[in-house]
Amino acid sequence: MNGPVIGRSLPRQDARDKVTGRARYTVDLTMPGMVEGRVLRSPYPHARIVSIDTAKAARHPGVMAVLTGADLSDIDPYFGQAVRDQPVLAIERVRFAGEPVAAVAAVDALTAEEALRRISVEYAPLPVIRNVDEALAPGAPQLHVDRPRSTLFPDVQDIKPDVTRNICHHFTFRRGDPAAAFAQADLVFDDTFTLPSIHHFPLEPLGAIAHHQGSELTVWTGTQYPFAMRQALAEMFGLPQSRVRIVVPYVGGAFGCRELIPAAPIASVLSRKCGVPVRVLFSSEETARTSSRNAGRVRIETAVMKDGTLIGRRGEIHLDTGAYTDQGSRVSKKAGYRIIGPYRIPHVDVNSYAVFTNTVSAGSYRGFGTPEVCWAYESQMDIIAARLGMDPFELRMKNLLKRDEEYAQGDRPIDSDLDQALEMIAKEVGWHATRESGEGAGLACAIKDGGGTRTSSTAIVRLHQDGSATVLASSAEIGQGVQSVLGQIAAAELALDPARVTVTAPDTGVTPFDQRTNASRATSLLGHAVQEAAARVAEQIRAIAGEALGVSAEACRLESGGVTANGQRLTFGQIIQRFFRDAGGELIGHGYQRPATGLNALGATASFWEIGLGAAVVTVDRETGAITLHRYVSLSDPGRAINPAGVEGQDLGGAMQGLGPALFEAMVYDDGQLVNGSMIDYRLPLFSDLPQSFDALIIEGGGGPGPHGAKGVAEGSIITVAPALANAVFAATGVRLRDLPLTPERVWRALREAGPKSPPTGARR
Amino acid sequence: MNGPVIGRSLPRQDARDKVTGRARYTVDLTMPGMVEGRVLRSPYPHARIVSIDTAKAARHPGVMAVLTGADLSDIDPYFGQAVRDQPVLAIERVRFAGEPVAAVAAVDALTAEEALRRISVEYAPLPVIRNVDEALAPGAPQLHVDRPRSTLFPDVQDIKPDVTRNICHHFTFRRGDPAAAFAQADLVFDDTFTLPSIHHFPLEPLGAIAHHQGSELTVWTGTQYPFAMRQALAEMFGLPQSRVRIVVPYVGGAFGCRELIPAAPIASVLSRKCGVPVRVLFSSEETARTSSRNAGRVRIETAVMKDGTLIGRRGEIHLDTGAYTDQGSRVSKKAGYRIIGPYRIPHVDVNSYAVFTNTVSAGSYRGFGTPEVCWAYESQMDIIAARLGMDPFELRMKNLLKRDEEYAQGDRPIDSDLDQALEMIAKEVGWHATRESGEGAGLACAIKDGGGTRTSSTAIVRLHQDGSATVLASSAEIGQGVQSVLGQIAAAELALDPARVTVTAPDTGVTPFDQRTNASRATSLLGHAVQEAAARVAEQIRAIAGEALGVSAEACRLESGGVTANGQRLTFGQIIQRFFRDAGGELIGHGYQRPATGLNALGATASFWEIGLGAAVVTVDRETGAITLHRYVSLSDPGRAINPAGVEGQDLGGAMQGLGPALFEAMVYDDGQLVNGSMIDYRLPLFSDLPQSFDALIIEGGGGPGPHGAKGVAEGSIITVAPALANAVFAATGVRLRDLPLTPERVWRALREAGPKSPPTGARR
Repeated sequence: MNGPVIGRSLPRQDARDKVTGRARYTVDLTMPGMVEGRVLRSPYPHARIVSIDTAKAARHPGVMAVLTGADLSDIDPYFGQAVRDQPVLAIERVRFAGEPVAAVAAVDALTAEEALRRISVEYAPLPVIRNVDEALAPGAPQLHVDRPRSTLFPDVQDIKPDVTRNICHHFTFRRGDPAAAFAQADLVFDDTFTLPSIHHFPLEPLGAIAHHQGSELTVWTGTQYPFAMRQALAEMFGLPQSRVRIVVPYVGGAFGCRELIPAAPIASVLSRKCGVPVRVLFSSEETARTSSRNAGRVRIETAVMKDGTLIGRRGEIHLDTGAYTDQGSRVSKKAGYRIIGPYRIPHVDVNSYAVFTNTVSAGSYRGFGTPEVCWAYESQMDIIAARLGMDPFELRMKNLLKRDEEYAQGDRPIDSDLDQALEMIAKEVGWHATRESGEGAGLACAIKDGGGTRTSSTAIVRLHQDGSATVLASSAEIGQGVQSVLGQIAAAELALDPARVTVTAPDTGVTPFDQRTNASRATSLLGHAVQEAAARVAEQIRAIAGEALGVSAEACRLESGGVTANGQRLTFGQIIQRFFRDAGGELIGHGYQRPATGLNALGATASFWEIGLGAAVVTVDRETGAITLHRYVSLSDPGRAINPAGVEGQDLGGAMQGLGPALFEAMVYDDGQLVNGSMIDYRLPLFSDLPQSFDALIIEGGGGPGPHGAKGVAEGSIITVAPALANAVFAATGVRLRDLPLTPERVWRALREAGPKSPPTGARR
Repeated sequence: MNGPVIGRSLPRQDARDKVTGRARYTVDLTMPGMVEGRVLRSPYPHARIVSIDTAKAARHPGVMAVLTGADLSDIDPYFGQAVRDQPVLAIERVRFAGEPVAAVAAVDALTAEEALRRISVEYAPLPVIRNVDEALAPGAPQLHVDRPRSTLFPDVQDIKPDVTRNICHHFTFRRGDPAAAFAQADLVFDDTFTLPSIHHFPLEPLGAIAHHQGSELTVWTGTQYPFAMRQALAEMFGLPQSRVRIVVPYVGGAFGCRELIPAAPIASVLSRKCGVPVRVLFSSEETARTSSRNAGRVRIETAVMKDGTLIGRRGEIHLDTGAYTDQGSRVSKKAGYRIIGPYRIPHVDVNSYAVFTNTVSAGSYRGFGTPEVCWAYESQMDIIAARLGMDPFELRMKNLLKRDEEYAQGDRPIDSDLDQALEMIAKEVGWHATRESGEGAGLACAIKDGGGTRTSSTAIVRLHQDGSATVLASSAEIGQGVQSVLGQIAAAELALDPARVTVTAPDTGVTPFDQRTNASRATSLLGHAVQEAAARVAEQIRAIAGEALGVSAEACRLESGGVTANGQRLTFGQIIQRFFRDAGGELIGHGYQRPATGLNALGATASFWEIGLGAAVVTVDRETGAITLHRYVSLSDPGRAINPAGVEGQDLGGAMQGLGPALFEAMVYDDGQLVNGSMIDYRLPLFSDLPQSFDALIIEGGGGPGPHGAKGVAEGSIITVAPALANAVFAATGVRLRDLPLTPERVWRALREAGPKSPPTGARR
């Protein structure tokens, strides 16, 4: 080990297991006596359940349990994140095609599937609400009439669904005097943008193994939210949280679709019935019917002065959140709050709605709430620039928030230098250079309050008697390299070789509370708890060593697995043996990360600001409408890059994933039936879609609350891809697209409608 | 929950799992891809390995690995407790019949066993050392000529085997002027007692599953010593301790035979070779060839004044420790130090030897070192009483150490009231009552320095947001109910319902250091660490609640899962939510238990004194020599009985187990071959052996270092059974037996030799 640990691009702890195929995912686990569970799903998007006959299935040889919603009356059979409104198995009514209606456990999967075919369900179909407009139409059927039961997240405890209008959540944000601003503006821009619902399509579908015996429940599942799952299941079964254990194996892609894994309560109720471990594995097609990113329509009005100064913004956001609340209420809040973008806009009036329909529930998707509004505001920035005859770069530079400037009252001041970031990415992409004929370049800038709202972590560090260490932390390794980074943070604090530090996977039975693995929060926020825990161990080391060496604790310097003071040296092993009088032992420290104080319009101050900037260079085939992306540059500010290769990987990974929603992805419904819910039918980005030139830039602005000034990255880059591409298409063709994805057909139709023209006024010169 | 938690007889946490058959032991576990390992063992008690041909076995279909000692040159292939002198697989030489010589991993057990038969080993037999006398005879072959490598236990780092005389360890303890004492004594008693080697015969044989991949090793095994195993395997494979994970499932009986499970390194080297998890399960017969309690010969000389005052003791102890050191050196130290017994004897001279022979290695067995010498000193006490014409009760009362008196220089003062204990048990057994004709009653008193020498523990307590708690502690649940007791300790400290506290099983990857589950140490010593950890959580609770309620922390009283102060109340859940600003979280505390300071002759002061008293009433069938035990009373002092039912169960369990070595048990060797190493051939105590009347008395003397004054029990009761029975036989028949076990044949021969007589002078009147 040479040089400082922080800032070193170390390989990921999970890398070798994953590339050699040794990594074990939920599907790879077996438990003694384990049986298989399978789920019968509703073929109807909306129906009343008239009757279910499970007798034949129950009699089928090898079947150990058959359950329907009616069998769950001795527990609280609802779960859900913001609101517990989703039954484990449908109760009286189904609200989307694919909703679980019955579950079977049997000695093997084929027997379970055979048993499903022997269950008869009689449905009385109800009118289908296909989209937001149908949901809000007068006289529309109402999907939810009962009150929400409780919530896992205190920040959404104020949700008051407007049950007479299928509104899951309505968020308002208002400041200044928007009416006056719009009245005094030189120009008012009023544009509407749409985006379809999409699915995360992790390579590993959802699944869980549950073992419910006596007063204990253990669940193995690849979740980003082990502690929220613990709480949900403890409340469902009336168990103390100490008796519910959620163990997280390796995870094959998350991106927001692995929060409360619905396979887990199904496996749990089956295991409770059978008395043995039950595995419920969803297929990829079932997973696609479990969660999604909402479809959205964003109307955005901006009041602008002739010199390009933005003075007012109105927003009206409608998000189709599907059949159940899931995270819909939180996404609508975030979208509403973030529609300001990274700009100084004094007068704001926003209404944001999450609306129930008979489609797959919408929840978290990488960057949630921000891709929706950034698509709108960054597209509109180029519309404004074109109209004013300004360079889009200059328009942005004029309005970008400065470092330490306030985003909104009660929130954390901006902790990145956006001007520097925009200049850097523009330079990198050659913004001011002469471009080949037909090429267009587009920019987009985004900012999001990062780390999650009202968010907390705890961690424990154990220093062993041979000077190696274990970090007990509960962040799921979802491919982001969190275990390596947390190990680096602890290693740095304890002057240890990172190879001697092991970081645990989450297991709520033993590893300490971490709110969730989301919102780019682990490195900085959980990292803070890890750093504090390690610092407490270091404090003990210094105290023991100081006494041993006859110097003050302050004089003891940690160095290469030992302490040096006054020319003397003790290894950590010697220090531990001294403290424990040669009996062996370990030194233990714990750390807490608590939410920032202060109240913004969301109910809690941001932990940090995550920025994302993207720049694209494209050409467009006027015959086919196909966009060719030649170059893409993404920029992020990790505050301090603990593991630069990890930051770059996360940033590029996000941008790569962003190509899908920008160019191809959409969940296509036909009268409430998802028609492309498989990896065959759904178009995901391929390696061949990547541009020739694809780079991630890092600014280490040092503004984060995490160790060494770290803050989060990993979501910023996905947000800007769609508007950067649309702006580049506009620059190349003069055609403005307002609906995602930017399919060749859509581009071709727009080109045909516009007729031949050269790059428009206002596009980059 | 009503009344105080401490002192309540709660059911054991593991009880329901065990009685319903739900408990999973090592044999019940499966791992994805797991294969089976089996071991080829030496048929010779002593031989040179000339050659091993594994080629045929390696070619056998389904075989994944074949290993011999020669294949382990890239690791440090030795393990062992006090000294690492035992090869994982024999290297060049075998030293006992049953020593592992080769190991095979194969797709299933039958294939592995078939492969074993295809391994050809050529041995050159060497002369067999059958017992201590042969080992010490001039010209005896030397079993160990190389220096010990290192040791896991610092207190035995001074072991200097006398390699020219097969001496594993020689312990000396001398104080006062023994020569003068023996010169001035009115009477000198010189007696020799023997006891054979015995085996623990746990219902669950030894076994382990190991998964060695990359730089990580995980082992599942029912061990009492997870952290010593971690260290042993880390050193063997050159891994940081943080990368070696020992997970302890349920354990089917331990009694000292589950320390460094030799199945584990064998499974580990096989897994390292195969790349998949390997399970190695020993049969009960193989387990019987893995560890034992040493055979012993104790010559004890006591200098006595006419009034019964003991003034001097000499001891010469020879323990047959078998082929490898195991714990032999430590047992010989303990035996030597403890030969004083619970009596005031100012002048002492003891030599205690552990001696190598070609038999199964001897290690820990419940109470180690004490049953050997207590058998001698308590038998001799009755010989002395008979000679002096004193009541054995009075002789003991005269010499018993008083509370707070010194046992030996540098050691902890006596922390029990032995006088009170002896009076209590005598009263209970009706010592001073007139007895039926032919009945004899016997007493025995023992004391041992408890808790282990130089011993340490750590613990972590996590208080969850619903007010339930988890105790992370690494004591193996070996049937003693440790998890329940630790839960009670934490619950009491936090004013929680014990049903809301969960205590983990050991998993060195996550649960904190505990030196070992032995020496009756868990309740008091690990319990102290748990109590301290819980107290640190309580401290945080009071600080947060005090701030919230506007009172001082000191004013906050913990009560029924919450805090009450000034007529206001907050639940722990509310307190945690307040601290974490509604984001969820948990409060964490850690605790350390460090060894007592001070140095006795063993190198470290006792943690506490464990006492054990036994009283037996028997009749003897003069025709057959069969002893009928009518009544047995055992007495222990747990300091404070945290869980009285648990204390009673442990005490009775020990006494019950003690019936075996007293009456039937012996490992029988024929020229180095164990001939009764199976449950069929070896006579263990049965329920039908229990006396009609069988009671445990508890004195709560409050003298322990543990929570609420607790100290350890569970070994005291096994120690006194043999001498109490032999003394009762003497009282009934006038026959003094000096060799264990007290078989009918042995009693019959002694009766025949003595001829008919009535109860002798000096026996109870």
